[in-house]
Amino acid sequence: MLLESLRRQVLHANQEIARRGLAPHTFGNASGIDRGGSEPLVVIKPSGVDYTAMTPADLVVTNLDGKIVEGSLRPSSDLDTHTLLYREFPEIGGIVHTHSEFATSWAQAGRPIPCLGTTHADYFHGPVPVTEPLTAEEVTEAYVRNTGAVIVRRFRSGNLSPVAVPGVLVAGHAPFAWGKTPAEAVEHADVLEYIARLAFRSILLQASESGIPPYVSEHHYLRKHGPKATYGQAKHG
Amino acid sequence: MLLESLRRQVLHANQEIARRGLAPHTFGNASGIDRGGSEPLVVIKPSGVDYTAMTPADLVVTNLDGKIVEGSLRPSSDLDTHTLLYREFPEIGGIVHTHSEFATSWAQAGRPIPCLGTTHADYFHGPVPVTEPLTAEEVTEAYVRNTGAVIVRRFRSGNLSPVAVPGVLVAGHAPFAWGKTPAEAVEHADVLEYIARLAFRSILLQASESGIPPYVSEHHYLRKHGPKATYGQAKHG
Amino acid sequence: MLLESLRRQVLHANQEIARRGLAPHTFGNASGIDRGGSEPLVVIKPSGVDYTAMTPADLVVTNLDGKIVEGSLRPSSDLDTHTLLYREFPEIGGIVHTHSEFATSWAQAGRPIPCLGTTHADYFHGPVPVTEPLTAEEVTEAYVRNTGAVIVRRFRSGNLSPVAVPGVLVAGHAPFAWGKTPAEAVEHADVLEYIARLAFRSILLQASESGIPPYVSEHHYLRKHGPKATYGQAKHG
Amino acid sequence: MLLESLRRQVLHANQEIARRGLAPHTFGNASGIDRGGSEPLVVIKPSGVDYTAMTPADLVVTNLDGKIVEGSLRPSSDLDTHTLLYREFPEIGGIVHTHSEFATSWAQAGRPIPCLGTTHADYFHGPVPVTEPLTAEEVTEAYVRNTGAVIVRRFRSGNLSPVAVPGVLVAGHAPFAWGKTPAEAVEHADVLEYIARLAFRSILLQASESGIPPYVSEHHYLRKHGPKATYGQAKHG
Repeated sequence: MLLESLRRQVLHANQEIARRGLAPHTFGNASGIDRGGSEPLVVIKPSGVDYTAMTPADLVVTNLDGKIVEGSLRPSSDLDTHTLLYREFPEIGGIVHTHSEFATSWAQAGRPIPCLGTTHADYFHGPVPVTEPLTAEEVTEAYVRNTGAVIVRRFRSGNLSPVAVPGVLVAGHAPFAWGKTPAEAVEHADVLEYIARLAFRSILLQASESGIPPYVSEHHYLRKHGPKATYGQAKHG
Repeated sequence: MLLESLRRQVLHANQEIARRGLAPHTFGNASGIDRGGSEPLVVIKPSGVDYTAMTPADLVVTNLDGKIVEGSLRPSSDLDTHTLLYREFPEIGGIVHTHSEFATSWAQAGRPIPCLGTTHADYFHGPVPVTEPLTAEEVTEAYVRNTGAVIVRRFRSGNLSPVAVPGVLVAGHAPFAWGKTPAEAVEHADVLEYIARLAFRSILLQASESGIPPYVSEHHYLRKHGPKATYGQAKHG
Repeated sequence: MLLESLRRQVLHANQEIARRGLAPHTFGNASGIDRGGSEPLVVIKPSGVDYTAMTPADLVVTNLDGKIVEGSLRPSSDLDTHTLLYREFPEIGGIVHTHSEFATSWAQAGRPIPCLGTTHADYFHGPVPVTEPLTAEEVTEAYVRNTGAVIVRRFRSGNLSPVAVPGVLVAGHAPFAWGKTPAEAVEHADVLEYIARLAFRSILLQASESGIPPYVSEHHYLRKHGPKATYGQAKHG
Repeated sequence: MLLESLRRQVLHANQEIARRGLAPHTFGNASGIDRGGSEPLVVIKPSGVDYTAMTPADLVVTNLDGKIVEGSLRPSSDLDTHTLLYREFPEIGGIVHTHSEFATSWAQAGRPIPCLGTTHADYFHGPVPVTEPLTAEEVTEAYVRNTGAVIVRRFRSGNLSPVAVPGVLVAGHAPFAWGKTPAEAVEHADVLEYIARLAFRSILLQASESGIPPYVSEHHYLRKHGPKATYGQAKHG
């Protein structure tokens, strides 16, 4: 079996989606990529299989064109979004798609999540962006792949880095998050939901959308990402 | 005992109402119909019996006029709504009535739930409709049956299909959902609550009521219901 | 030990307050009354004792003047509210005070909960009333007893029946609920919290405060309380 | 090992932060101080260690300048806020920092929590204050220590007592709470979250920001803190 370790990581990330309540039913999926071989290979959740029953062998291995390399089940219906993001964002090693409730509510409102606090600033550099809706042509031509395309377009037009901004809201749909590994991707998906909850309530309390002062958000961002990162044994605390 | 398999399905659907938290106390009920015999027969929850203690033998079997065919307990007080819906919507095989919190909050506000996202579009074709209030005459004449009547009237006047729109909000009361089977009905009741939660928060975030573009909602609807349904092994993922 | 059966009922009601999450910490209390002896006797929770460790023997028995008849612990600090309500509302046999979150939020807003739906109508005849604030003199003179006095005054001035309206919001404080027994009182406290949650969300969705048509609320009220009550084996379903 | 008893108290307070859901991930920390020795000593959570795996020996002992006296792990990254508060507020013996969701939402909105009810009044004398944002100079110079400095400045300028007001919202960040002991600090952090939830909902229901009458809040404050405190065996009930 190819990529046993990555399969276990991807399975664990899929289970974490369920355990953390980030997606009802089977509305969610995680994948990982191995960029070290002769050809980059993606490991992704099969479509419609219950998380609790899933084993590493159920996962599907594809190449970056979505061609199945190993696996008897059909891959997640969102595969083409994942592969496009891996092609365009070479820095990332894992992707998680959820329908977590508050992040999805912001996505449905078509609003970016403003940076209203330091937890946001620790993880996301600036607002969590929201894509444009897909055009009718994009839906007809290749809906799933073009879901990835509108994400990438948003990052290119906004000059955003997928390392500094490890997630996005797809307008009228739901969030995607990513990271260096599948585990980091699911952590970012979880934090995204947490800051979406906080921001929802702060906005209802009339928080200014301008958010915290830039010198505060920069300070938080740099203490995690800068050359002089100061965080504890492992992370914030 | 008549209809043992359907009894088990209906019992399970009633238990799922409780397990998924869709109705506090005993405010909820599920039924199923067998249309295959000489006379269509409905299996429904008895009134006021705790879900945890219920067995298949406690369920009540009636005909489509609500006459008890088998069972010693009194059927759910909502029986006449169920039988009317089965008479008018021959496509459906199971009905679930809940008092799930967010769907009920929309019902109490008398507002349809706009289609703000793709999860909604996967399950409901267009907004989740809300009925008119019953008239004073309808309440006096036959309150429970006429609760079914206002549902059917809403579907007829809006030219809605109970297959495309598997649920409704009864104004000032609560939701009903249905499906091909009792299990599908409870799944639809659960998804209805989920999209009601999302839409509540999106509307508070000033989402436009016009919702997602029609070409997106059509795409989602058709990939589940169209002739070229593309979903995974089982469902979305 | 006096009143063993009532002690067990009151203990159970106090435990239900905790189990249903109606009061954080020890912010809550339940009592019951035995009106059958030579002198009416009240059984009430002791002050500040953890629910999980409480036994029937810990409960305190007082007369309607609040004099301790049996018990070594100090009675709940809200005793004088309970005794006043028992004196003024001879129809009731149990009282529950909670700080349940949504009902308390309405109490803090000083707003009655409008009757927006049928679940409300099944349990409360008209809006859940809210008291006036206590005056400075009432606070100074006898704060706890006068908390009962403002409740009674609200019922007298509004010509409300404690049977038809089994609970109230004390402005700036929290709800009280009651019933024929301690068990019914805790059920009413639980339903009050449920309808407070629904109404909160419906009002944010711009529900009209006028609520459901009176002929609907009357129908629901009468099917539970009228001479031709039609409910199931036990209750709604 | 120094301060075994205080280490156990601080460990327990950190575990309570997690058990009560007051901080996701490891976003939270508790400390305690022993002022009885030749030099006051602070016991604080190490940075980034999972609560479930923590033992008393993992905790870090420092003096009031933040110098490590015992411990091999790095102390919480918020240490300098704790030590500054212990230096400036000699009445307090324990500090808890959380990212609890509703209190943090108020902090992000930059709004004090008005005193809308008696539970608030039992614990906090007047509104829960919110700090000014740190200036750019304060962030650059010593971000963590100056987080303590803006808290102290807020208390000095408002003539607030840390005994009467056992917590604060740091604007754009999250709450800090304190008490005579680490256990009391975590209780205050928990109550702060509870009153933040209530106030959020009451404000959305258009509660007046002026809150309950001063004679009511004074009465509640004094029955817990005044010379004639009347509360039960242990606390409110």
